[in-house]
Amino acid sequence: MEKALHMKRIELGVCYYPEHWPEELWEDDFKRMKDLGFSIIRMAEFAWTIFEPEEGRFSFDFFDSAINLAHQHGLKVVLGTPTATPPAWLTHRYPEVLNVSQAGTPYQHGMRRHYNYNSPVYRELSARITRKMAEHYKDHPAVIGWQIDNELNCEINVFYSEADHQAFRTWLQQKYGTLDQLNQAWGAVFWNQTYTDWEQVHLTRPTVSDSPNPHQALDEKRFISDSAISFAALQAEILRETAPNQWVTTNGLFGHLDSHKMTDELLDFFAYDSYPNFSTIYPDKGDKPLLDRKWSWNLSAVRSISPTFAVFEQQSGPGGWVNRMEQPAPKPGQMRLWTYQSIAHGADMVLYFRWRTANIGTEIYWHGINDYHNKPNRRVEEARKIGKELNSIGERLAESRYKAQAAIVRDYDNEWDGELDHWHGPLTQESTMAWVKAFQYQHIPADALYIRPDMKAEELLKYKLLVYPHAAILTQGTAALLSEYVQKGGRLILGARTGYKNEHGHCNMAPFPGPVSEICGVSVEDFTRVGPYEEAPGIRLEGSEGGRISAGQFNEVLKAESGQAEILAVYEGSYFSGKPALVKNPYGEGFAYYYGGVFNLQLAEELLKESGLSKPVDWVKVPETVELAVREHQNGSTFVFLLNFDHSPQEIKVEKEAKNLLNGKIVSGSMTMNPFDVLILE
Amino acid sequence: MEKALHMKRIELGVCYYPEHWPEELWEDDFKRMKDLGFSIIRMAEFAWTIFEPEEGRFSFDFFDSAINLAHQHGLKVVLGTPTATPPAWLTHRYPEVLNVSQAGTPYQHGMRRHYNYNSPVYRELSARITRKMAEHYKDHPAVIGWQIDNELNCEINVFYSEADHQAFRTWLQQKYGTLDQLNQAWGAVFWNQTYTDWEQVHLTRPTVSDSPNPHQALDEKRFISDSAISFAALQAEILRETAPNQWVTTNGLFGHLDSHKMTDELLDFFAYDSYPNFSTIYPDKGDKPLLDRKWSWNLSAVRSISPTFAVFEQQSGPGGWVNRMEQPAPKPGQMRLWTYQSIAHGADMVLYFRWRTANIGTEIYWHGINDYHNKPNRRVEEARKIGKELNSIGERLAESRYKAQAAIVRDYDNEWDGELDHWHGPLTQESTMAWVKAFQYQHIPADALYIRPDMKAEELLKYKLLVYPHAAILTQGTAALLSEYVQKGGRLILGARTGYKNEHGHCNMAPFPGPVSEICGVSVEDFTRVGPYEEAPGIRLEGSEGGRISAGQFNEVLKAESGQAEILAVYEGSYFSGKPALVKNPYGEGFAYYYGGVFNLQLAEELLKESGLSKPVDWVKVPETVELAVREHQNGSTFVFLLNFDHSPQEIKVEKEAKNLLNGKIVSGSMTMNPFDVLILE
Amino acid sequence: MEKALHMKRIELGVCYYPEHWPEELWEDDFKRMKDLGFSIIRMAEFAWTIFEPEEGRFSFDFFDSAINLAHQHGLKVVLGTPTATPPAWLTHRYPEVLNVSQAGTPYQHGMRRHYNYNSPVYRELSARITRKMAEHYKDHPAVIGWQIDNELNCEINVFYSEADHQAFRTWLQQKYGTLDQLNQAWGAVFWNQTYTDWEQVHLTRPTVSDSPNPHQALDEKRFISDSAISFAALQAEILRETAPNQWVTTNGLFGHLDSHKMTDELLDFFAYDSYPNFSTIYPDKGDKPLLDRKWSWNLSAVRSISPTFAVFEQQSGPGGWVNRMEQPAPKPGQMRLWTYQSIAHGADMVLYFRWRTANIGTEIYWHGINDYHNKPNRRVEEARKIGKELNSIGERLAESRYKAQAAIVRDYDNEWDGELDHWHGPLTQESTMAWVKAFQYQHIPADALYIRPDMKAEELLKYKLLVYPHAAILTQGTAALLSEYVQKGGRLILGARTGYKNEHGHCNMAPFPGPVSEICGVSVEDFTRVGPYEEAPGIRLEGSEGGRISAGQFNEVLKAESGQAEILAVYEGSYFSGKPALVKNPYGEGFAYYYGGVFNLQLAEELLKESGLSKPVDWVKVPETVELAVREHQNGSTFVFLLNFDHSPQEIKVEKEAKNLLNGKIVSGSMTMNPFDVLILE
Repeated sequence: MEKALHMKRIELGVCYYPEHWPEELWEDDFKRMKDLGFSIIRMAEFAWTIFEPEEGRFSFDFFDSAINLAHQHGLKVVLGTPTATPPAWLTHRYPEVLNVSQAGTPYQHGMRRHYNYNSPVYRELSARITRKMAEHYKDHPAVIGWQIDNELNCEINVFYSEADHQAFRTWLQQKYGTLDQLNQAWGAVFWNQTYTDWEQVHLTRPTVSDSPNPHQALDEKRFISDSAISFAALQAEILRETAPNQWVTTNGLFGHLDSHKMTDELLDFFAYDSYPNFSTIYPDKGDKPLLDRKWSWNLSAVRSISPTFAVFEQQSGPGGWVNRMEQPAPKPGQMRLWTYQSIAHGADMVLYFRWRTANIGTEIYWHGINDYHNKPNRRVEEARKIGKELNSIGERLAESRYKAQAAIVRDYDNEWDGELDHWHGPLTQESTMAWVKAFQYQHIPADALYIRPDMKAEELLKYKLLVYPHAAILTQGTAALLSEYVQKGGRLILGARTGYKNEHGHCNMAPFPGPVSEICGVSVEDFTRVGPYEEAPGIRLEGSEGGRISAGQFNEVLKAESGQAEILAVYEGSYFSGKPALVKNPYGEGFAYYYGGVFNLQLAEELLKESGLSKPVDWVKVPETVELAVREHQNGSTFVFLLNFDHSPQEIKVEKEAKNLLNGKIVSGSMTMNPFDVLILE
Repeated sequence: MEKALHMKRIELGVCYYPEHWPEELWEDDFKRMKDLGFSIIRMAEFAWTIFEPEEGRFSFDFFDSAINLAHQHGLKVVLGTPTATPPAWLTHRYPEVLNVSQAGTPYQHGMRRHYNYNSPVYRELSARITRKMAEHYKDHPAVIGWQIDNELNCEINVFYSEADHQAFRTWLQQKYGTLDQLNQAWGAVFWNQTYTDWEQVHLTRPTVSDSPNPHQALDEKRFISDSAISFAALQAEILRETAPNQWVTTNGLFGHLDSHKMTDELLDFFAYDSYPNFSTIYPDKGDKPLLDRKWSWNLSAVRSISPTFAVFEQQSGPGGWVNRMEQPAPKPGQMRLWTYQSIAHGADMVLYFRWRTANIGTEIYWHGINDYHNKPNRRVEEARKIGKELNSIGERLAESRYKAQAAIVRDYDNEWDGELDHWHGPLTQESTMAWVKAFQYQHIPADALYIRPDMKAEELLKYKLLVYPHAAILTQGTAALLSEYVQKGGRLILGARTGYKNEHGHCNMAPFPGPVSEICGVSVEDFTRVGPYEEAPGIRLEGSEGGRISAGQFNEVLKAESGQAEILAVYEGSYFSGKPALVKNPYGEGFAYYYGGVFNLQLAEELLKESGLSKPVDWVKVPETVELAVREHQNGSTFVFLLNFDHSPQEIKVEKEAKNLLNGKIVSGSMTMNPFDVLILE
Repeated sequence: MEKALHMKRIELGVCYYPEHWPEELWEDDFKRMKDLGFSIIRMAEFAWTIFEPEEGRFSFDFFDSAINLAHQHGLKVVLGTPTATPPAWLTHRYPEVLNVSQAGTPYQHGMRRHYNYNSPVYRELSARITRKMAEHYKDHPAVIGWQIDNELNCEINVFYSEADHQAFRTWLQQKYGTLDQLNQAWGAVFWNQTYTDWEQVHLTRPTVSDSPNPHQALDEKRFISDSAISFAALQAEILRETAPNQWVTTNGLFGHLDSHKMTDELLDFFAYDSYPNFSTIYPDKGDKPLLDRKWSWNLSAVRSISPTFAVFEQQSGPGGWVNRMEQPAPKPGQMRLWTYQSIAHGADMVLYFRWRTANIGTEIYWHGINDYHNKPNRRVEEARKIGKELNSIGERLAESRYKAQAAIVRDYDNEWDGELDHWHGPLTQESTMAWVKAFQYQHIPADALYIRPDMKAEELLKYKLLVYPHAAILTQGTAALLSEYVQKGGRLILGARTGYKNEHGHCNMAPFPGPVSEICGVSVEDFTRVGPYEEAPGIRLEGSEGGRISAGQFNEVLKAESGQAEILAVYEGSYFSGKPALVKNPYGEGFAYYYGGVFNLQLAEELLKESGLSKPVDWVKVPETVELAVREHQNGSTFVFLLNFDHSPQEIKVEKEAKNLLNGKIVSGSMTMNPFDVLILE
């Protein structure tokens, strides 16, 4: 079942914490929200002790007042279940609910997300508070839906409490049945790790040199994901059963969690929290960094879960904690730019984080729209402008969908295995960013495509081009899927390190690139990393004027195995100079490209040219700095988003008469976009 | 009561560890000390096991021999209580006395300062050894005073033993009375931190992402300071009661300890340990670093506690531990320079650390005057020269006082809050060093002025100029004090981030700069940090030829709220170009300056010019590299210290006939100061 | 008794893990090994659970099959005792066998070397499995010898389990007898560390500022070494008693282990594991890095243990773990170069690590000769070439010995003390590398000479020149040995910091350089480190054209104390400019040189010139990039190894007719060596 968000109009809203402020302020706050064009508020997700001040005693008065007042002012409410922050009475009485570091240090009360998913008592108490809240609010006319917990796997995404070790053992018993199977899957014969009793089996524990068994480490991440999903499922089932008329979702996209599986199994749609100003402190590396525009790629991943979705936290001010991640203020216009970035990529509901900056706690520098002082400021004015615009166009845009021609292929197994494994994970990160940039700068709208169980080739054939950069783990099933895609006319681009591992992370006893050798028409004759003090060799594309391209930090020397295979580039500047580096193989009605190196922007752009893709709208000319995105409606309407991420004005050209939805004006010919400005052309 | 050290003459001396050396060496050591002009030795501060070799059995023979022999040679003795290093029998039998890391690892026997201040048994045994020593030495003719413990809060200044958690709870109960008050003060409603039972309350404990509650973290530091003071008080009371004719002090200036409060409540005067060669390994940052001259600023802080004071450890050789902080040898002359640096700033007693370099233990590279080999060396000869000089002039200088025209204002709450809070603490460090340099290089003697409870405006009005760079926490009381200061004619300079927090560290629901808005005649319209990859905007002072000045890492866009407010500078190079950055407001008889940025040396020098201050002695011309300091006697004598911190000779000019006290010669006209040389002109 | 390896011919072989592969592969593997010229395989060192699947139940079937099959194919077998990786049943049932971090975290099952040497139960179970294996294989015709455990002290070389603390106490009681002696040796009076009961005594434990007692830290390392030796002895005694006809050794050269003592007491010869490609990720620092050629120096250390020896693991592919130390592939030719590097330096047996790259576990990127896929590759072909060459020349070379003219002197006490002590350890590392390079680039074959108890001057007098860079700990015994060496005509070069510590690491109460002052004819007048922000002063050699030489990070100002002492260089560029820095003193029939600084390549080369040494073979001219090594046979045969470590061709000149053993051809005159090529001339 497709997990899209279905809205009649794009709605704006805001996160609100009535418990942080004197009750006298609420009414004025709600009035001002309406005035700005907001219609939805999220609340209650960190308020367990207010609902249950002592174990088993429940109280709804406080939030009843807040919700009723919001309702009186015409606001709708999303309620968070409060399980992200267990009460002090709970962690003090049941310390076994705490998450614990690998070395055994419990994480204590005072921050958030310090619990584990597998403690029976925590599951029981979480189920009870969820049920109590659902029973109380299931028929409230203002309450439209539920957010389970808050940002599962944020802050920390590893868990080593005793409950987790035990649950892992059960999970493994279900997965493998016997210890023999487990020992096989974990390659336990290596270094005498063979287990002879289930009691000997644990999640990874502290080891000399901090080098865990890599197969165990991969299963650990799968288990953590399943644990989070199981914890969410406990709440989702209660909510569905108790409050069948309110929707259920959760927010955030974090590590060690298969958000696709969770959404498919449990949620109505997926919600994301978007903070593009992290780019000011952790910019992406390499040539021409994307900075806040990288969030367009993050939103592509979100869209692969829910084609239309909600943003539950849209950054609306300077961000950062008291003691880390300090970010500047968004520049005037950026808050609006990021809102339309979310919308262009499929968001049909956007809630700002947050109404007013917290004046207590560790979040006093994650600024909201309003400052501590609650006086007018430029961010409030910027919100007012967006509210006004969406009031006018929100209905037309809603339910239209982002339209892509190509996709970067991903999967959770390689993501998780590649965290520990420095011999493929970092290559994927590097190549992915190169391709994201190439698509962005060439204005080719692209999706993220996650390989899922039981996937059909049809889902792949929606795309003219697929790039799956370094899929170390590549099962026969996935190989068959890719093979069918190419045979039926698709173009598939693969890179070094493809296909040398099985689903356990064992290395296959087969020539590289394993199960896709035949599709690609190549085998790997020799290979090497480039040492940290060595210069990487280059490649040169036949017939291209692009010059030398660095082959990156891993090089496979290829050998064409098919008579039709065409060598597009050879290495230069190493002991394998002159040997094939990039091979194109016709296969069925399509083509497979195999590259022995790591992709960079330069090569990705060359290969885009080679693939023949062009931008979807031929009547606008925009520079690299302006993102072009397209949302299409089933009814045929097409909305062309132009987003200027640059800090300076940009020249664009519209080669026909088009309407800018945002102000209703007709535009045509050359024009200047202001810094951070947005156009939506129709 | 003023906590000054009252000496008839400036006395020299040395730290001596008789327990480290064969008894046969003592007599020769004492003779040589006298020969160098030393009169005081400090001893016994790490010798608990010698006094109490097993629990409850006491022995004074060893130190009786040493002290008696010292007495025979005319030396006076300062005794340290030995509580900085508990005996092995103690920590082994009572492991609860150990200090413990936040994560729960006890710090074990073998180093120093591995105990906690709150363990009942440690307090009891510390009290007993103190009483036993006091009873034994209270009438000894050589023993002139006591040093409590050694360097409280050195090595480590956080404490997480079970005894500390318990004592913190009691401290909070006394401070807040009820859990409701505590929850309020700690903003516990944020992220569901609400406490419902005192047993749930702790010092900060390990949390996910290592982000404690900032209000709790501030109280924790206040508690640590009170714990240290309480531990010192335990000993001070015993010493006063038992040995009323000997003075009581302690040494060192370390974090998380309100040394003003401690000195006011417990001590006769304060003693400092001065190691300027730390500057060779941790130089101050920014333009024109002060290096060892920065210790003049440290001594200003000491002087704010005790207007005249002792230096119990004056660096006299290369320093550093076996495995860290390795420093070069002081250059010839530096040991003498640093001695006069201490004296210029108010020291009337200087003990060198140490007589002879330890040849065992972890301190074998903290060299003393004598080398391991005990043969003549250049450091002994340098000490001899100083001894001779002070024998001749020590009486005249004693009890004269450093004379300042301006002060940099500080307070413990902001210092402690700013350690965790990266949004104001680092700004204060940067701006403070800028101002210290400006005062030094412009030859304007300056004090450190700590805001204390019950302070009167008179204490501020001693200064023509006060700079209080970034006082995030600023109570109504302090605001009133500053207001009175300006109204009565003072000049006050404030910087960005002033006045946005209350005493708990909550952010005020009021426009910035909160309680000093009226004095300054401004409000803050917008603000931003400068991101790590951004360039800071500049400011340009109206009518100055100084050019562009960087506005630093935090920028507030100001708005003049008073008709009289004068905009001295606007921003350039950002989206708030042209907006006010620096405003001068006449207020009563004085002026308040508010700067929206972070101070640097260039701006501090411009503002010094604007303030009209000039150097206190108009008849000497010295380059920036030479410090000018003035001590004045109640009897009218004025001593002008010139200290050449430069490694090369410096030209100075004395424009009248003046006597150089150090050699009795008359100097006049142009002359050259050798590297590290000192003049004291009268 | 000399611990040489006595082989009739140099033998090649490989590490093989039958347990990692389907039994069907074994036969083909063995056939291919023979085909490549291999004769020896090592196996079983990580296979405890296969031999003892549950406590007390033993099974030899699996390895019987593998060993018998190997035997059928004419291969000899080295068996490893499996104690480096305890079984899961063992660590689960007896957690006290685990090694533990200093802070108390046990290292758990899943990696290797997570046990401690002192646990009684681990010793008992290790003894039993060793005895069982020895009884079973003592007469097997294929089994030629035993490897005890695997790489003792690799991965981690500190141990803090409860068993270790207890054993340390016993070790100290045996060493010191009384607590008084212990307190004396550890300088416990410093900072009140005095112990009054043995129960108070521990290995170093967590301390504030992580600064242990340095004398205790030195004893701790001696104890760790003795613990490892004692653990090896337990096995060695069983093996000797049970299997007297098979030899006993162990492999690897790791920290905190006196491999000389261990070999002398327990082993037949020493075996080394050689991985020169670590140089690609951890290159040596300073001018002209040696990179993989540095392994020639490592092999010199091995040779000082066993004049001829085995290499049990010779790198044969790309290396690195899943998550760390990622290395590139050896370039074509490097595997052969490294093989001959080992042989040139004394290896008479070389086993490659490993036959086929592991396809499971954390070692999947420590590639063997064969890839996962087991298809032909260039590494197999390179092995074949070496096998062929050694089949032809292995007999002639065997038992010939590396011939050195000079030696760099080392000892374990200074190595271990210098790990913690930053005031001499880093100087030794820097100076040693400078001298290693000077010897290499000047083609002067050099040994590593370890000072051993009961050493005779004869062992020193084999060398014309000894360099002992910074021997901080220098006993009277060693001083007497060095004195005799110089008196009888040797040349001895010493550097700063020599002789200031006794065997406990106490600083001597004597002028520097302590017990060698007389030999060197100097004393140290003053000294300093160079601070991290200072420039080091220079020295200039009298009469040399070499120009200014940096004096490095520590400078002693020397004073000639002997009338014959000749000042070779003075300092320039500091307050001790013009003072002596380098002094040459005639003493008996020889000369002692004392240098107040830290050696660098430039100075080492100047001093080599001054010493008059010249390269041992005058009829070859080779550039710096080519190593020249000589093996001589008792029968008079001399083999000149030329090893081109450069990545480009190198010109050499052979000035007579010589035979290149490797291909039997006569060479003469100018010729080009290919990158990584090897010549063995006779």
